[in-house]
Amino acid sequence: MKLCRYGAPGEEKPGLIDADGHIRDLSPHVPDIAGDVLSDRGLDRLRGIDVKTLSVVQTKPRLGPCVGGIGKFMCIGLNYSDHAAETGAEPPEHPILFMKANSAITGPNDDVVMPRGSTSTDWEVELGVIIGTRAKYVSAAEALNHVAGYCTLNDVSERHFQAKISGQWTKGKSCDTFGPTGPWLVTRDEVEDVQNLDMWLDVNGKRMQTGNTKTMIFTVAQIVSHLSQLFTLHPGDVISTGTPPGVGLGMKPEPVYLKEGDVMELEIAGLGRQRQQVKADA
Amino acid sequence: MKLCRYGAPGEEKPGLIDADGHIRDLSPHVPDIAGDVLSDRGLDRLRGIDVKTLSVVQTKPRLGPCVGGIGKFMCIGLNYSDHAAETGAEPPEHPILFMKANSAITGPNDDVVMPRGSTSTDWEVELGVIIGTRAKYVSAAEALNHVAGYCTLNDVSERHFQAKISGQWTKGKSCDTFGPTGPWLVTRDEVEDVQNLDMWLDVNGKRMQTGNTKTMIFTVAQIVSHLSQLFTLHPGDVISTGTPPGVGLGMKPEPVYLKEGDVMELEIAGLGRQRQQVKADA
Repeated sequence: MKLCRYGAPGEEKPGLIDADGHIRDLSPHVPDIAGDVLSDRGLDRLRGIDVKTLSVVQTKPRLGPCVGGIGKFMCIGLNYSDHAAETGAEPPEHPILFMKANSAITGPNDDVVMPRGSTSTDWEVELGVIIGTRAKYVSAAEALNHVAGYCTLNDVSERHFQAKISGQWTKGKSCDTFGPTGPWLVTRDEVEDVQNLDMWLDVNGKRMQTGNTKTMIFTVAQIVSHLSQLFTLHPGDVISTGTPPGVGLGMKPEPVYLKEGDVMELEIAGLGRQRQQVKADA
Repeated sequence: MKLCRYGAPGEEKPGLIDADGHIRDLSPHVPDIAGDVLSDRGLDRLRGIDVKTLSVVQTKPRLGPCVGGIGKFMCIGLNYSDHAAETGAEPPEHPILFMKANSAITGPNDDVVMPRGSTSTDWEVELGVIIGTRAKYVSAAEALNHVAGYCTLNDVSERHFQAKISGQWTKGKSCDTFGPTGPWLVTRDEVEDVQNLDMWLDVNGKRMQTGNTKTMIFTVAQIVSHLSQLFTLHPGDVISTGTPPGVGLGMKPEPVYLKEGDVMELEIAGLGRQRQQVKADA
């Protein structure tokens, strides 16, 4: 299944993408794409609904983040061997973890707004992992059983805030609008091999990032397992799993950053496409 | 006012501490100590209630975190000049920011559980700041107008996870039960000078930390202002503002960490006392 959330920010309704690509209204069945709805039982209940009985959304609504009530938004850094090489960093011994504030999460096609003082706003196409059932001390072998599904993410990053103003990466990762999430949550049964998904990102139609999840240093299963040794993962938690090569920071001869009016487009095979216009906060 | 939340985890009801120290039930008036209730208007509405009309909670219930629906839990590192000296770190140019996962937040007297593999669990008494109204690009001069109130916090930290397993501090800060918050939210009008509050922490009755918010490198107002340049602070966001000297990591001749059965007690003048027993996860 492809699940989505549509409507005005903060008022999104749950939806399902049908075989023709139309949004069908799930709100008579579930309040949101969130919490227990993401468990195997919750998803099976949705699978049991005859799609033809769900009304088609006739307008072309805004899409919100494809998961509601996100508990924690965890991000893995430097997780692609080809991206680690690009930044000059040594591959890490364990997954590098940082957090993005929930207040940064937006819909897949909402504007990305550079905050005042931003000089170095950058893009990062990433595979998002949505937790479906509680995970604590799980092995890599069982980790994917705790995953509800996957989505496309843009881990937008202000490099100056991230690295140059005293502190941890979260400063450059948590600006408002820096977490476009969606368009869909694709349930894990529909992703044949999560470690073999092509991904790309364009800026103004020019291909900047090209990658595949097969060059991840830590697999999705290893990441879920590792995090679950540190703390409990709850339904609706989201993990962004790192970015392949081609970010602005890594450009030669010098970094290239976003400017007002730029358009980012990005896609992961089977998980759908995002498109954001870049604005600057007045 | 002193506001609290009491009852079983996840089912806390809102309460008010009366002049005799009894909990009065606020649930007929507000659903939770959260969101809009924390605005100046929301707090004024609570002030308008005749306390005598609120029923006294006769049992001695568990206290939950004193704020519900926390959006983001932001922490400032190395923010006391005397603590920075203790760790050997240079005082930072801007507030050092990291995040604690919301899933770590617990009540002020709940057990602190060291996760499997923990070798270096440490204590940190901290002043908590609870945001009451939306803050974006606010100056230090106006910052405190956006604060609902203050509380006592224990920013429990696993030093090995924090510094030694590839990555950012959040790994050692986000373990389940590592965020005791409360006992009360004390509204800002009842805190005469937030930059002159004594604080202490004992382990097994022995004084380990002694400090005062007057040695903060960045004041509460400066921190709120700085963070609001990076992202929007929303009602119910919590900022933990750093710890004074005396953490286990700084002990001479070598660090001292918590072990099963230890008891932490900590207090900030006027904001109430916490007490946690330390357990180890099986």
